[in-house]
Amino acid sequence: MSQTDIKILGISGSLRAASYNTAALKALYELLPPGVTLTEADISDLPLYNDDVREKGWPPAVERLRKQIAEADAIIFSTPEYNYSIPGVLKNAIDWASRPPSQPFAGKPAAIMGASPGAIGTARAQYHLRQIGVFLDLKFINQPEVMIGGAADRFEAGKLTHEPTREFLKKMLVSLTDWTRLLQQKK
Amino acid sequence: MSQTDIKILGISGSLRAASYNTAALKALYELLPPGVTLTEADISDLPLYNDDVREKGWPPAVERLRKQIAEADAIIFSTPEYNYSIPGVLKNAIDWASRPPSQPFAGKPAAIMGASPGAIGTARAQYHLRQIGVFLDLKFINQPEVMIGGAADRFEAGKLTHEPTREFLKKMLVSLTDWTRLLQQKK
Amino acid sequence: MSQTDIKILGISGSLRAASYNTAALKALYELLPPGVTLTEADISDLPLYNDDVREKGWPPAVERLRKQIAEADAIIFSTPEYNYSIPGVLKNAIDWASRPPSQPFAGKPAAIMGASPGAIGTARAQYHLRQIGVFLDLKFINQPEVMIGGAADRFEAGKLTHEPTREFLKKMLVSLTDWTRLLQQKK
Amino acid sequence: MSQTDIKILGISGSLRAASYNTAALKALYELLPPGVTLTEADISDLPLYNDDVREKGWPPAVERLRKQIAEADAIIFSTPEYNYSIPGVLKNAIDWASRPPSQPFAGKPAAIMGASPGAIGTARAQYHLRQIGVFLDLKFINQPEVMIGGAADRFEAGKLTHEPTREFLKKMLVSLTDWTRLLQQKK
Repeated sequence: MSQTDIKILGISGSLRAASYNTAALKALYELLPPGVTLTEADISDLPLYNDDVREKGWPPAVERLRKQIAEADAIIFSTPEYNYSIPGVLKNAIDWASRPPSQPFAGKPAAIMGASPGAIGTARAQYHLRQIGVFLDLKFINQPEVMIGGAADRFEAGKLTHEPTREFLKKMLVSLTDWTRLLQQKK
Repeated sequence: MSQTDIKILGISGSLRAASYNTAALKALYELLPPGVTLTEADISDLPLYNDDVREKGWPPAVERLRKQIAEADAIIFSTPEYNYSIPGVLKNAIDWASRPPSQPFAGKPAAIMGASPGAIGTARAQYHLRQIGVFLDLKFINQPEVMIGGAADRFEAGKLTHEPTREFLKKMLVSLTDWTRLLQQKK
Repeated sequence: MSQTDIKILGISGSLRAASYNTAALKALYELLPPGVTLTEADISDLPLYNDDVREKGWPPAVERLRKQIAEADAIIFSTPEYNYSIPGVLKNAIDWASRPPSQPFAGKPAAIMGASPGAIGTARAQYHLRQIGVFLDLKFINQPEVMIGGAADRFEAGKLTHEPTREFLKKMLVSLTDWTRLLQQKK
Repeated sequence: MSQTDIKILGISGSLRAASYNTAALKALYELLPPGVTLTEADISDLPLYNDDVREKGWPPAVERLRKQIAEADAIIFSTPEYNYSIPGVLKNAIDWASRPPSQPFAGKPAAIMGASPGAIGTARAQYHLRQIGVFLDLKFINQPEVMIGGAADRFEAGKLTHEPTREFLKKMLVSLTDWTRLLQQKK
C-alpha cells in the first residue's frame, strides 16, 4: 500500500480550557504514524446555526471550518458526552459544516474518541455520532472504540500520561491511517 | 382528576424566522385545552456552552431559560431533524439548562413534535431526544408521536393550516395534559 | 398513596442456566417491598416468530406469556447485551407478545436491569429496549438505571452476593413500585 | 478496479411466506451487476440462542449459516421493523452466527434494505442494525438507504413490480459492489 501523506483534522467537542477531550486530542501529536499530520479545528467562535444567517453569507468562522474539513483526508472527533448524547457545540459545528452546496464531510474516513470521569466513558454519545455520520457519509472505523473512563486518573496537569491509554490511541491512529489509505485507492 | 392549571413551556429547535417547527408550536395557542397555558422559550441568544463560562456565573439568557423550565409544569419540544439528530442549538440549550446545582427538567412531563418537508418526519431526531430525556429525567408521553411530514403542503404563510394535523396536535395536548395531571398526584 | 398489591412479571433475556441476568432477577425475591410479588416468565419454549404461524392460532407458550403480561401490574426486564443490542430471544418474545388483537404491554410501568462481565454493563442494549418500549407503550422508570458491570466478582455460585448491588436493586424496586402506584391512580 | 466475482449472502428478517422483505430480496436476482451472485440464508430452523446448547456443539442449522456467511464477500439484510427494532428472529440468527471462536461477519461489506406498509419504512430498525454492525465489524454502505414505504402498492402477487424501486435496488447493488471491490484491495 502506498505511503501517501495523510492530513487529519481533529475536532474537540468541549470548549473548556482544561477539557480531557481536548487534552486527549493534543496527545495525538506525539503518537502520529509516519506521514500523518494533525490539525485542530476551533469551533468556539461559531454562531448558533440559523439558516437565515447562512442565506446572507457564510460567517467567517464557518468558512474556515468548512475549508479545514474539505482539506482533510480524515477526521477525528474527541468528544465528551453531555446528557447521553454529543455536546450541542459539536452538533452546532456539524450543522454549519454540513450545509449545501458542498458537504465537506462526505466520504471522509473518521474515528471517534472520548474521555470522561465515569465508567461508561462516552458510549452513548459515540453511537449518536455514528448515526449522524450515516447522513454525513462519514466512513467511521469500527475498531478500536476509544472510550476513556476514569479520566481523572489518566491525565496529569492537562496531559494524557496513562501509558496504556496512549498505546490505545496509537492503535486507533494506525487503524484510521490504514483505513484512509485503503479508501484512497478508489481515486 | 382535579383540573389544576397547567403551564407548558414550548421550545423550538429552529432559529430561522420561517421555521415550520416554530409555526407548529405557535399553532398550539389556538388548540390548548381549558386551564392550559403556553409560553415559548427563546434559545437564540444563548452562548455556546462552555463550563469555564458557567463557573464565572450563569449568562443572563441561561438564567432566564432555567427559570422558565423550573416554572413550567410540562415541556413541549418542537424540533427539526438536522443530520439525523436534534439541532445543535437545541442540544446547546439543554446542555446549559441541565447543569448543577439544580436540574430544572427533572421529573417534568414532556412531549415531542417535529415537522419536516420529507417523508420520515423527524423520527431519528425524536429518538435521540428521548434518550437524552432519560438522563434529564423527563417523563415523555409515548403516544401520539407527532411527526409532520410533507410540511410544505400543510403550512401556508407561516401558519399550520392542515386541519387533520391540527386535530392531531390537539390530541397530543390532551395526552400531555392528562399525563401531567396524573403525575402531579404524587405531590 | 394507597398500598395496593403489585404483581411484577420478570423476564430474563438469557436462556443459559448459569445466567447472571437470571440470577439477578432471582435475587429480587429477597428484596421485594411489602405488598409486591414477583413471577418469572419462561421464554425458552417459544417458537421463532412467524406471522403465518400466528394466523393459525397462538402457540400455547405464547398464550401463556401473553396472559402473564396481561395479569402483571409492572414488568422488569433483566437482560444481557448481545452484539450491542438486546438478545434475539428476548426480542422474539416481545414480537410474539405484542401482536394484535390486544397488546398486553400497553401502559404497563417497567424497569430494566442488566449484568455483564464488562465495564459498560448493558447500556447499549438498554437504550434499544427503551426505544422498543415507546412502541409498546411501556412506562419505563428513568432512575435508577441498573447496569451491573464486573459481574464475575458480584455473583457466587449463581447468587448475587454483592451487598451494594443488592441495595441498588432494592432502590430500583422501590422506584418501580412508587411509579406503579402513581400510574394506577389514573383508574 | 479489478472485476473479481462477488458472492452476496442475503438474509431476510421475516419468516412469513408472503413477506415483502423476502420478496424484495428475491427481486435482486434480476438486478445483479455482472460478476455478482446472490445466495439466500435460511434462518427459520435455528433454535433459540442458548449458550449452554452452543457449548455442546453447534446445531447444524447454525453451522450452515456460519459457513454461508464466511464464504460470502458481502451481506445484504432485508428486514422488516417490529416494535421499532429488528425482528427477534434476525437478531437470534446474528447472535448465533457471531459467537467465537471465529466471527464470520467481521470485516464484510454490507447493506440494509427494508420494506413496510407504513410511511417511515424501516428506519428505526435499520439504525439499530447499524449499531449492531459496529460490534460485528460489518462495513455498511451509507448510501443509498433503502426504506421502501407503502409496500402494498409496490408489490404484486409476491413480486416487486414498482419500477423506480427496482432501479433504486439496482443502485444499492452497484454501491455495495463498488464498496466490496474497494475493500478487497486490502488483501
